[in-house]
Amino acid sequence: MTTTSHSGSSAGVTRQYAPYVKADWGYANHWYPALLSDELEDGTVKGITIGGHDIAVRRSAGKAYAISDRCMHRGVKLSAKPMCLSEGTITCWYHGFTYGLEDGSLTTIVGNPDDSLIGKAGIRTYPVEEVNGIIYVFVGEEDYGTPPPLSSDLPARVTNDPNDNPVPHLQDEGIVIRGIHRKLVGNWRLAAENGLDPGHLLVHWDNQILVALDRALPLGVNALTDSATEEIDIPDGPKGVMNRYDRPDLYKPVLDNPKVNMKARGTVPHYFRTSLWVPGVLMVEHWPITDVVQYEFYVPIDDHHHEYWEIIATRATTDEDIAEFNFKYDNFMLPLALEGFNNSDVFAREATEEHYTRFDGWNNEVLCDMDYSIVAWRKMAARHPRGFFESPFQDED
Amino acid sequence: MTTTSHSGSSAGVTRQYAPYVKADWGYANHWYPALLSDELEDGTVKGITIGGHDIAVRRSAGKAYAISDRCMHRGVKLSAKPMCLSEGTITCWYHGFTYGLEDGSLTTIVGNPDDSLIGKAGIRTYPVEEVNGIIYVFVGEEDYGTPPPLSSDLPARVTNDPNDNPVPHLQDEGIVIRGIHRKLVGNWRLAAENGLDPGHLLVHWDNQILVALDRALPLGVNALTDSATEEIDIPDGPKGVMNRYDRPDLYKPVLDNPKVNMKARGTVPHYFRTSLWVPGVLMVEHWPITDVVQYEFYVPIDDHHHEYWEIIATRATTDEDIAEFNFKYDNFMLPLALEGFNNSDVFAREATEEHYTRFDGWNNEVLCDMDYSIVAWRKMAARHPRGFFESPFQDED
Amino acid sequence: MTTTSHSGSSAGVTRQYAPYVKADWGYANHWYPALLSDELEDGTVKGITIGGHDIAVRRSAGKAYAISDRCMHRGVKLSAKPMCLSEGTITCWYHGFTYGLEDGSLTTIVGNPDDSLIGKAGIRTYPVEEVNGIIYVFVGEEDYGTPPPLSSDLPARVTNDPNDNPVPHLQDEGIVIRGIHRKLVGNWRLAAENGLDPGHLLVHWDNQILVALDRALPLGVNALTDSATEEIDIPDGPKGVMNRYDRPDLYKPVLDNPKVNMKARGTVPHYFRTSLWVPGVLMVEHWPITDVVQYEFYVPIDDHHHEYWEIIATRATTDEDIAEFNFKYDNFMLPLALEGFNNSDVFAREATEEHYTRFDGWNNEVLCDMDYSIVAWRKMAARHPRGFFESPFQDED
Repeated sequence: MTTTSHSGSSAGVTRQYAPYVKADWGYANHWYPALLSDELEDGTVKGITIGGHDIAVRRSAGKAYAISDRCMHRGVKLSAKPMCLSEGTITCWYHGFTYGLEDGSLTTIVGNPDDSLIGKAGIRTYPVEEVNGIIYVFVGEEDYGTPPPLSSDLPARVTNDPNDNPVPHLQDEGIVIRGIHRKLVGNWRLAAENGLDPGHLLVHWDNQILVALDRALPLGVNALTDSATEEIDIPDGPKGVMNRYDRPDLYKPVLDNPKVNMKARGTVPHYFRTSLWVPGVLMVEHWPITDVVQYEFYVPIDDHHHEYWEIIATRATTDEDIAEFNFKYDNFMLPLALEGFNNSDVFAREATEEHYTRFDGWNNEVLCDMDYSIVAWRKMAARHPRGFFESPFQDED
Repeated sequence: MTTTSHSGSSAGVTRQYAPYVKADWGYANHWYPALLSDELEDGTVKGITIGGHDIAVRRSAGKAYAISDRCMHRGVKLSAKPMCLSEGTITCWYHGFTYGLEDGSLTTIVGNPDDSLIGKAGIRTYPVEEVNGIIYVFVGEEDYGTPPPLSSDLPARVTNDPNDNPVPHLQDEGIVIRGIHRKLVGNWRLAAENGLDPGHLLVHWDNQILVALDRALPLGVNALTDSATEEIDIPDGPKGVMNRYDRPDLYKPVLDNPKVNMKARGTVPHYFRTSLWVPGVLMVEHWPITDVVQYEFYVPIDDHHHEYWEIIATRATTDEDIAEFNFKYDNFMLPLALEGFNNSDVFAREATEEHYTRFDGWNNEVLCDMDYSIVAWRKMAARHPRGFFESPFQDED
Repeated sequence: MTTTSHSGSSAGVTRQYAPYVKADWGYANHWYPALLSDELEDGTVKGITIGGHDIAVRRSAGKAYAISDRCMHRGVKLSAKPMCLSEGTITCWYHGFTYGLEDGSLTTIVGNPDDSLIGKAGIRTYPVEEVNGIIYVFVGEEDYGTPPPLSSDLPARVTNDPNDNPVPHLQDEGIVIRGIHRKLVGNWRLAAENGLDPGHLLVHWDNQILVALDRALPLGVNALTDSATEEIDIPDGPKGVMNRYDRPDLYKPVLDNPKVNMKARGTVPHYFRTSLWVPGVLMVEHWPITDVVQYEFYVPIDDHHHEYWEIIATRATTDEDIAEFNFKYDNFMLPLALEGFNNSDVFAREATEEHYTRFDGWNNEVLCDMDYSIVAWRKMAARHPRGFFESPFQDED
C-alpha cells in the first residue's frame, strides 16, 4: 500500500486557493486584536508582534495608541524597558528618542533637544480601535490608505438564529466580554482550520465538560450536499464560511462506527454553530452554553507561531446579570471550556505544525470528504486578499 | 608547526570509502532494533525514528507491527496520542483515520465510515521481527522488495573462540538478554568507530570497573602487520571487521610511554575481542566478564543523533542461572559497565560531533597508525551498500 | 510619518567605514585578553574562544601557553577533559595525542609511542604575554609573522590629565588590577560603541551608585564642534578616539529637556573621560572614582557573542594601600559599578543585537548628532585593519 491517495490527492486542489497557501505569515491589511483593554493600564506600554510587525501599544490619557516597537536610531524595542515621560509620547530608554503617539514623529531627544533629526524623521504608527474590552490594531502596508471598518474583519452579525435569540456581535452595546490569549507554536492557518473542522470531534471525545453535561456529541458531522457549507461574502463586509448545523437537511451526524466498535456518547442535545471569517476569526454560537458566544482569533505572530485568543461574550446589562456571568466564566467556562476543552485543540494544532513546516504539508496532505468545510474556507480566504505579511528578517542566521 | 600532517592526511584515504562518508543519515534497507520487547505491552503504541523514518510500533494480539507514524491526512504522529480501537488496526487520534496494521490500508474513518478515501489509500508498513526480547524493524526504500534475513544485519555467529566457549548469537535459543538504549547527540558513525577503536583506551584509564577488578589495561594495542584487522564478508550474510585480540602474533600491547610518564595499570589479564558489523553493530565477546557478550547498536535517528543500544547476553536456561545473571546485571553490569564504563564513550562521541558537523571532519581529520582498524571498517562498510537514508525534510527553516 | 530619516540616513555614512562594517567576527591579528592570571593555576587548562579560534590556555611550570584547542586527530577539544601528563606538553584525553606547548608539535601518542605521525605533524600555537594579572593572546593568521607589541593594542598611556595625576597604564609597574569577565549575547561592536557612547546616559539615570554619591549626571553631552572627538593614531602604537570631557570649550552638557519634563539629577560634579581603542578596548579615566581607571575589553567570540571584560586598576604598592583598594573593590566598586552600573549597559547591548542581526542594522540605523563620537570611532577602527576574523564553520546546519 503506497502513500499515494487515489481520490484525495491535494495537488489539484491546492491550485484553487493558492493565495491562501502563500499566506504563511498571515494576511496583511486587516484588523487584529492586540490586547485586552484591562491588560493596558493608563500610562503603560506593552509590546506585541503581529505578522512580523513589532508594535508597542501604549495607553496615554485613557486612549490606546499603536506605534512601531523599533526605535529608528539603533533598533531596540521601545517596550523592552518602557519609558513614558509625557502624555502623548513614548521615549526610547536607550538614547531618549521621543516620538509623538499620533503620527510617530521624533519630537525630541532627551539628551539633545537641538538635534537636527528632530522634527524631520519618525517611526510608523498603526490605526487603533478599542471596543468592548478589546484593543484592535490595523496592521499591514504603511501606505495602505484608510483602513476598512473594523466590522469587516469580525464575524458578521447573526440574524438567522433558529431559536430567535441571536448571540451578540463583538461591537454590540450591552454586552460583557471575558477571555484569554496565549502564544502557541503553529501556523495560524492550522489553528483556524482546527477551529472550524467538522471532522475533529474525536479529540474532544473524553473532554470533561461534555461528560459533565452529558452532551450528545456525534463521531462526525457529514454534509449531505456538496454545497452544505455556506459561503458568506458581504461586499465591504465580513467574508466567511459557516457550518449550518442549524439545518438538519444539510448534515448527517455519525453516531456509530462498528468497524472500530465506537458509538457516540451523551444524551443531551445541544445546538451550536461554527463559522470562520477572514482574516482568521472563529465564531461558535451558543458555546459553551446557550445564549453565550465564543469567539477565537488566530493572530499570526510569525510563520510558526500564533496568538490564540478565546473570548466569551454575552448580553448583560444589570449588575446582577454581569456578576452571574462573571461567576460562571471564572468557575465553569474558563476552566472547563477555554482551558479544558480547547486545550485538546491546542495539542492538535501544535502536533500538526511539524508536518506543514518540515514536510511541505500544504502539498503533502490528503484531504477527505469530511474536509468539505475546510476547503470552502480556504477558497473563501483566497479570494480578494488585501495583502500578505512577509518575513521582516533581512539577514537570518 | 602547521596543522598539515605529513603522513596522515585523510584526503587520499577518504576516496577509498566514499559511500561511507556519504552515509550521514545511515545505511538504508537494513534491520535495526526498534524497541525491547518488554517496552511494548500488548495493545500499546510507541513512536521511534530510524534514519529519518518516523515509525509507530504497535503490539496487537501479541504481535508487533511497524507502520508509518505520520497520518496521511494532516501528517500528525499517530504515536503522539495513541489510539487503538480494535485489534489489527491503529487509529489517528485527530480525525479518526484508521489503518490496518498488516498493509497500512485506510480501513475506516471514525467520524465518516462512508468516506470515499476508505479502501483506496493508506500509509506504508515496515517488516518486523521479534527475537529474544528485541523488536527489529527493516527500514529503507518502500519498494526494496523482500528484506534480506535478519541474520545478515547482526554480528556473525562466533565459532573460533580461543577458550572453546563461544559467546551466544542474538538469535540463539537458550539465552537471556538484558539491556538499555538512549538517544545521544552524535552521528552514528562516530559512535560505531568509538566502539571498535583500539586507540581510545585512554578514556577508560580510570573507570571504576577496571580498578575494582584490577584488570590489566594496556595504553594501546598496535597491529604488527598491515592486515591485522580481519575482514569478514559472508555472501548474503554479515559484513564486519574484527580486532583479533585472540592472536598475540598480530598485536602488541603498549604498556609504557616514558615520554609522558605513563604505565599501564592492573594485573589481572582478561580476554575479550571486538568486532563491528554493517549497518553499525558492535560485538564485544567476553565483556564485561567472561562468557557474557555485549552487543551495541548505533542506530541512526538523523544526521546528528543516534540511538545507543547496549545489550548483554548470556546462555542461561535454568531459573537459577537466569536469576543469577539478572542479579549480576542489575547490580554489577548495568551500573559499572553499561553506565559507568560506557559513559566515558558517550562523553567522547558527543565531544567529537562538533568537529564533524561544523568543520567537515570527514575531510579534516588526521588518522594515525592506531586507526588501522577504523579504516578497515570504513572500507568494509563502503562495500555493497544497500542504500542510504536521506533527510526527509522538504522545507527546513 | 515614514521611517525614512531626512538628515540621518546611514547609507552614505556607512561607506566611510566599510572595513568596520565587515568586521562582524572581529579584527584579526591583535592581542586580546584570554584569562585573568588567577583563573589559571599551575598545571591546569582552560578553553576559550576568540574570533572563532578555539584556544586551550595552559599553565606549565608557571608559564602560560596558548595552543589550538582542537586535536588534529578527530577534532575534539583538548580542554573538554584536561589531561596534562608532563611539563611543557598537553595531551588529548581521547587518544593520547600529546603536543609540545612551545611549538605545537606532536611529541608522542600515549598508546603508540612509535606512531609514524609523531614528530611530523602538530597543531598551531599562539603568542602569549602575561602582565599585571592578565594573560593576553595574539590571535589571527597563522603566518602573520612577529606580532606587534602588546602596547599597540591597549589604550595609550595617559599624559595629559587635567589634575596632573594620570591614571595607570595596564603595563605599568606598581599597580593593582581587579576585575571580572563574562560571555554576553551581542556583537562586539555594539558593546564597544555602547561603552564610548556620549548619548546613552539615560540608561544610567537611576543607577544606585550615582544616586548614592549624588553624582551630577547630565541628560546628554553634546559636542560644540565637528571635531570635538580627538582621534589618536600613534604610528606602530595605539589607535583610538577620546571624548575630551576635560575640555569644556568643546562640550556642552544638557541639563534640562522641558519637552519631556526631565532635568539632570545630582549635585556633586565628577571628572571622568572615556576613550575607545582598536581592537575594542575602553578606558574610563577616574571611574568609578577618582584616581582609579576602568578598562573594558569587548573580545569577539563569534559574530553574535563577546566576552565582556571589566578591569579596575589603581596605583598601589604598600600592603595597606593594596588592602584598602581590595576592600573598596569587593564592597563598593564590584557590586555598584561593575555589576550595578554596567549591568544597565549589558541590558542595552543585548537589546540592540536583534536589530543588527536580523534587520541588517548596520545599513538600517539612523544616527543622530549625538553619535559624532561613535562615527569617529568607526572611521578610526576602519583604518589600517590588520585582518578580519572569519567564520570557521565549513558546514553549518
